[in-house]
Amino acid sequence: MQELKDRIMKEGQDMGGGILKVDSFINHQVDPLLMDACGREFADLFRDVNATRVLTAEISGIGPALMTGKYLDLPVVYARKNKPITMPDTVYLTVAPSHTKGVMTELIVSPEYLSVGERVLIIDDFLASGATIMGLVRLTQAAGATLVGIGALIEKGFEGGREKLVELGIPVHALVTITRMQDGQIIFAD
Amino acid sequence: MQELKDRIMKEGQDMGGGILKVDSFINHQVDPLLMDACGREFADLFRDVNATRVLTAEISGIGPALMTGKYLDLPVVYARKNKPITMPDTVYLTVAPSHTKGVMTELIVSPEYLSVGERVLIIDDFLASGATIMGLVRLTQAAGATLVGIGALIEKGFEGGREKLVELGIPVHALVTITRMQDGQIIFAD
Repeated sequence: MQELKDRIMKEGQDMGGGILKVDSFINHQVDPLLMDACGREFADLFRDVNATRVLTAEISGIGPALMTGKYLDLPVVYARKNKPITMPDTVYLTVAPSHTKGVMTELIVSPEYLSVGERVLIIDDFLASGATIMGLVRLTQAAGATLVGIGALIEKGFEGGREKLVELGIPVHALVTITRMQDGQIIFAD
Repeated sequence: MQELKDRIMKEGQDMGGGILKVDSFINHQVDPLLMDACGREFADLFRDVNATRVLTAEISGIGPALMTGKYLDLPVVYARKNKPITMPDTVYLTVAPSHTKGVMTELIVSPEYLSVGERVLIIDDFLASGATIMGLVRLTQAAGATLVGIGALIEKGFEGGREKLVELGIPVHALVTITRMQDGQIIFAD
């Protein structure tokens, strides 16, 4: 997706260690019109999978997931990292390592909003090692729901995430794929 | 706003202790079309304050803030509760008590996206005790930016938040105001 790629070229920063800083339009400050365009693109890519829920992880997945849900007219569920007191006592919980924080984080979904019969489209900001997305996959499986697609704004093709997801046998789309980051340079696939 | 009020009447749950559960359309599962309608409403209410940034707090403020930013064509900054490694060493940080978690949480904003000259519109999901919103107010003041308005989806009129905000002398709007919750009944203003 050219619009997102242009923005990464203009404002993205290679922080070293495989970390891409996109805090000015995705991860701390968000550009709503860009997220809206990304949501429309995901909706086009996944219209035929007949999803009934969009699933994402707080925090940075919420923007693109919400806009995707808007275009597909689907509810969006975001897995929480802490269990709020409004959640039932029994939940689906899995742990996943956080790439940018260096710790294990919990991902929690209430059975109220994810259950047998649902067709789940996972949307997140990054596909890197695939750890967070695989956590969302496990939550989907634990709920007995059917996974129908996975979308990420930005894929870091050099971290091996796609290899894990391909085995699931469902459509996996990234709007922009980065093949390499080196000496501050960001190299895109095309 | 009738659409939001209807949804609270249909799906909101008084959990006791002043806690309103709206996890099926705001706080865990999100209805993107409802959030879009709320964003349009906020945009109408605040069009004249000439904001240059929308400021919210992760996590549940992101939905309404993003949709408001979309209609006003403004960047949305969400204060983070943990400092990611992509953030500069020196940041604006304040602490605020979390109503639903019973702990103090940090609210952190990078000076990259909030600074002197900005006109800040705060949007959040709840206006209850006002603790989180006052945290966002302090971050705005610390950055030397100008606060121009505050909007919340749902005001709990019985928790005293509005009294704190009125002293700021700027427009404060809630889309729905609840005056009382008792024995599972949710009582709305007007």
